Order: sequence, then C-alpha cells, then structure tokens
Amino acid sequence: MTQELILNQRVVLASRPQGAPTPENFRLEREALPDLQDGQVQLRTLYLSLDPYMRGRMSDAPSYAAPVEIDAVMEGGAVSVVEQSRNPKFKEGDLVVGQTGWQTHSISDGSNLLMAPKDLPSPSMAVGVLGMPGITGYMGLMDIGKPKAGETLVVAAASGAVGSVVGQVAKLNGLRVVGVAGGEDKCRYVVDELGFDACIDHRSDDFAEQLKAAVPNGIDIYFELVGGKVLESVIPLLNERARVPLCGLIAHYNAQSEPEGANRLPLLMRTLLTKRAKIQGFIVYEEYYHRLDEFMQAMIPLVKDGKVKFREDVVEGLENAPDAFIGLLDGKNFGKLVVKVS
Amino acid sequence: MTQELILNQRVVLASRPQGAPTPENFRLEREALPDLQDGQVQLRTLYLSLDPYMRGRMSDAPSYAAPVEIDAVMEGGAVSVVEQSRNPKFKEGDLVVGQTGWQTHSISDGSNLLMAPKDLPSPSMAVGVLGMPGITGYMGLMDIGKPKAGETLVVAAASGAVGSVVGQVAKLNGLRVVGVAGGEDKCRYVVDELGFDACIDHRSDDFAEQLKAAVPNGIDIYFELVGGKVLESVIPLLNERARVPLCGLIAHYNAQSEPEGANRLPLLMRTLLTKRAKIQGFIVYEEYYHRLDEFMQAMIPLVKDGKVKFREDVVEGLENAPDAFIGLLDGKNFGKLVVKVS
Repeated sequence: MTQELILNQRVVLASRPQGAPTPENFRLEREALPDLQDGQVQLRTLYLSLDPYMRGRMSDAPSYAAPVEIDAVMEGGAVSVVEQSRNPKFKEGDLVVGQTGWQTHSISDGSNLLMAPKDLPSPSMAVGVLGMPGITGYMGLMDIGKPKAGETLVVAAASGAVGSVVGQVAKLNGLRVVGVAGGEDKCRYVVDELGFDACIDHRSDDFAEQLKAAVPNGIDIYFELVGGKVLESVIPLLNERARVPLCGLIAHYNAQSEPEGANRLPLLMRTLLTKRAKIQGFIVYEEYYHRLDEFMQAMIPLVKDGKVKFREDVVEGLENAPDAFIGLLDGKNFGKLVVKVS
Repeated sequence: MTQELILNQRVVLASRPQGAPTPENFRLEREALPDLQDGQVQLRTLYLSLDPYMRGRMSDAPSYAAPVEIDAVMEGGAVSVVEQSRNPKFKEGDLVVGQTGWQTHSISDGSNLLMAPKDLPSPSMAVGVLGMPGITGYMGLMDIGKPKAGETLVVAAASGAVGSVVGQVAKLNGLRVVGVAGGEDKCRYVVDELGFDACIDHRSDDFAEQLKAAVPNGIDIYFELVGGKVLESVIPLLNERARVPLCGLIAHYNAQSEPEGANRLPLLMRTLLTKRAKIQGFIVYEEYYHRLDEFMQAMIPLVKDGKVKFREDVVEGLENAPDAFIGLLDGKNFGKLVVKVS
C-alpha cells in the first residue's frame, strides 16, 4: 500500500533557556511523517495547549518529569483528529486528546490517547476547561482543598485556565472567592463574568493591603499556582486548618537564583504549625487521571449550562507558539492559551 | 469543716522575653490555697513536664493558644496525686495528668484531668513517653507520616521526648531511621540505645553532607520538630510523595526577626510541587486527644516490653524549673525534661 507523503511541522527545543525563554530556544522544522504501522494512528493536530508547566520541561533541573531533550519536539497536550487508523480502537474522524507535542501531525500507538468529550462547541475545550487545566483545578480544589460553604478561597491567575475553574467551582460550593490577576481588564472579567466576589490586581502597590481587606474572615483555601509575592501576602492571612493545594509556581519558573532578602521559610513553617495548616503538592496526571469520569460527570453539565464559564486566548499557527508561550510566562495571555494548528 | 492551710509555690510569668527567656522573666511565689469547693479536687504535683511549646505561651504573638498573662502561673502539664477530693470521679491517692501549671499544688474541677495509666514504674512517664510528647510522636507519625516498611525517616531532637518515640516506632514499622541530635553523647545514645540506623550531630560543620550520606534512598518522612538548618538540609533530600508532619520549630522559638540571606521559601515550594510532597501542621491536643485509647493500647505494651525506650532528664525542685526550661530551648537537656516537684 502506498501512502501519501505528509509533511509534519514541529517546534523543537533548540537550547535550554537561562531565565526567561527567548525565541532562539525554539526551532521550527519540517519532516516527512514515517509510514503508519499496524496498531498505529496518524493524527492531525487541531489545537495545541500552551501551559506554564512546559517551562519546567525546557530545563534539565530535577523535576517530576524528564526534560525535553535538545532537538526533540516540545512536549505539550493537544486535541487532534484521527486522519488514518490502523488501530481498531480508533477510526478516522475521531477526536482525541494526548501529549502529542508542538507539531502539526503525530503518530501514536493509541496508548497515550483519550477520546475527547463528544459534542463540544469547540474541540479546544478538550485541552482547557474540560481538559488538563480543568481537571487540575477541579480535582485539586475538591480533593485537597475540601471546600466548605462559608469558607474563603483565594486563587491567583484567576482569569486563566486553572484559576477560573477553581474560583467558579468554589463559588458553586458556597465559598467567598477572591481572585488575583494582572491588570484591570482581567480583574473586571473575573468579577463581572466569572462571578468572583472580588479580584485584586497584583500589580497594585498596595496589593497585600487590598488582599487583606478582601478576606475579612481570613483564607481557608489558597489554591497555589503562582508563588512569589502573592504567596507571601497570603501566608499571614491563612486561617486555622487552612489547605493549600499546590500545582504551580509560575512566578518562579524563570528564576535563576533564590531571591535575597528576608528568608520567608520560617514564617511559612510557623504559620503551618500555629494554624495547623497543610500544603500539598500534586501533579494532575499522576494523582487524578484515574478519576477522569468523576470530573467529566461533574463538569460537562456545569459548562453546558453556563455555570462554569471560560475564556480562550487563541493564537493562529504553530509557528507562533514560541512567542505565545514566552508571553504566557509573563502573564500576557487573557484566558486559556491555545494554538490553532490546523 | 476546717481545712489545713496549704502553702502553694508557683512560678509566674514576670515579663515577656525578648529573644531567649532569662531568669528575670519568671518569679517564684507562695500563696495559700483557697478552700476546696464541692466538685473540686486538690492536687499535689509530682512531676512537671517542661516542653518547648511553652516558649510560645510566653509571647503574645498570635498562636494556636492564648498566651500566659503577666503575673499568671506558667502553663504546663504535670502528673499529680489527688490529696483531697470533693468530686465523685476522683479519690485520694489517684494519679492524674493535666495542664495544672508550674506549681506545687493546684485545684481543679476535674474537667481538665485524665487518669494516669496504671502501674507505671515512674509517674513521670505519664507526662513523657506515655503522655503528651509520646502521643505527639506516635500519632503524628502514624496519622500524617503514614510510615511504610522500607522507607526512610529523619527526625531531629532525636534523643528527646518526641523524637525518640518517633524514631523507635518507625523502626518497629520497618523504616530506615536517621536521627539528628546535638553532640556525640546524644548521637551515641540514639544509635546504641534507641536503635536508630544513624544519628548526625547538627553541630558538625559538614552536617548537610553527613545527612545526605546517611539517607542514600532519600527521605520519605521528615518529622519536623526543629526547623532551621536541619529543615534546609532536608528539603533537597525529600522523595516523591514525602510527608512532613510538623509539630515544632524549636530553632525559631527565640528568634526576634526573620533571618537574612537567601529566601528558602521558593525552594521549599518548588520541592513540594515537583515531589508532590505534603507538609501538615498539627497540635496534639486538638487533633489527637480523642484517640488516646488507640495510643495507649499501642504504646503501653511497647514500653513495658522495652521495645520503646526512653530517657528522662530529672531536675529536682520547682524553683529550678526556669533555668531548666531556658536550657531546654538551647538543647542542654538529654532526654525528656521533667521537674520533680514533690
């Protein structure tokens, strides 16, 4: 059987960043796709998800996952359409989600693929509110945060993919919800559209004072995505038995050394001790993908009924992924950042 | 009914310490005990327990418990004998444990008293290995630490009241156990008598390197009692899904400001994230006193059979309690510090 020659475009890691990534750390390549073997499927990428965790994969510092090798395709989740299948579990036209990387096409044996939820208004939702970021926010909140009506929750990156799910689901559970975001536009969106009780601009000079004023009863759950000065402002406001689900630290991803100045480690430890509080790190793939059904059953109706809203920041074309990713680490996106690949 | 006049000696808080406590922060007083009312018992203190947490009660900084007021008797747990009872639940000669304070006698309505375990070789054990420190170590280890055979545990203050219980119970659960203690004598005791696999002297110049060499498979449980440089040395050695039960930070209790230098907060947070690790603060009275029976059933046989050993550092006379307590915060005691009051 002869096969049509498919030219795959892909973004590879050209070099490891020192501090913030630059365009030179990435390289766009073209290659012919190899022939499809029995058991394999050939995929065409529709939407590539760009997420802060990818910064970790660009470095070879110890982490929970192996780094991307130099000259290898950048790691990333995407929603794709099956173009050809020699695997009985998949047929042409199926929409699938998997860690298929920053590329226009990919070949898989199917073991790393999940079927996308059916009948989505946009396939991109399968890598956003109903994908990895949504699962991260929902499961981290429910399983570690254990929200109780009347409590107060704070989440930063509140207009983003994870933070917006965390805050809206917490509101539906009867909590007071305070977001943190960068800039007036994002804060207005978080309050007016997402229904948070308040949102504080982390660029404000008096950020810590504003945050304190917004949580008159203290903070019971701090969903940690950012670290940095937001965390330092949150620590003194934590209540007894506060819970801190920890799945991101975007403020630190580009750091090359520890900040000088007062050592805040003792402050955190004293607070955890005197408040009997808990911090727990989690990685959504490891901890919660076996509970995907639970998530989908809870979240699909909420999204369909408009009770959980979401916003996407769509960039056109794989070649623009590096710039978009660099901007993501600087908070330049507004909503879940996805690349429309084809 | 006429009652014999009983002269009570007590140590009150004369002033709040700035940094390390000094003898001037305490004052020894004598007072006549008031007459016993219906429902009350009159107690004579046998052994007063001195514990690091008491430093927190001397300050009026926010904490999980109210501070001791100036001129009020110092807070502390003790084992006492019932001298007179007008409460049907207690009879003369009963041994009881409670937060009766730094004094030779006390009067109680019984609500804050527990019966001491029967047939102890020394009543002092009721405030040590079978009292608050023992419960703290045992429950924090089992409930938050969740030890599994083959894992590695590190505990500092390893020759002390809590640390010695943590390490020995962990050994009985099949863990590799590494202690940290101050000085050669304590380290020798921890290994030779308590049976830890290793013990590192935190006064060594190359403490961090020695600790690393002692945990070739990393650290799965770090039972946190001390903070400071031990914690900073532990952080890089934590394994995936490590657990850190946190119930003390003795290295910080006398601190008057945050240490300058590198801010280790980001390092801790990154470690918790990438290792999916957990830190959880707990206060034994709040979390675990309802599980006292579970503790006693597990621990009394271990102590009676000599499987959990303990060492006491006994100071004679209430008047020596302030100096002994000041030394405790400086690691001068060797074993559980108790004051033989009468």
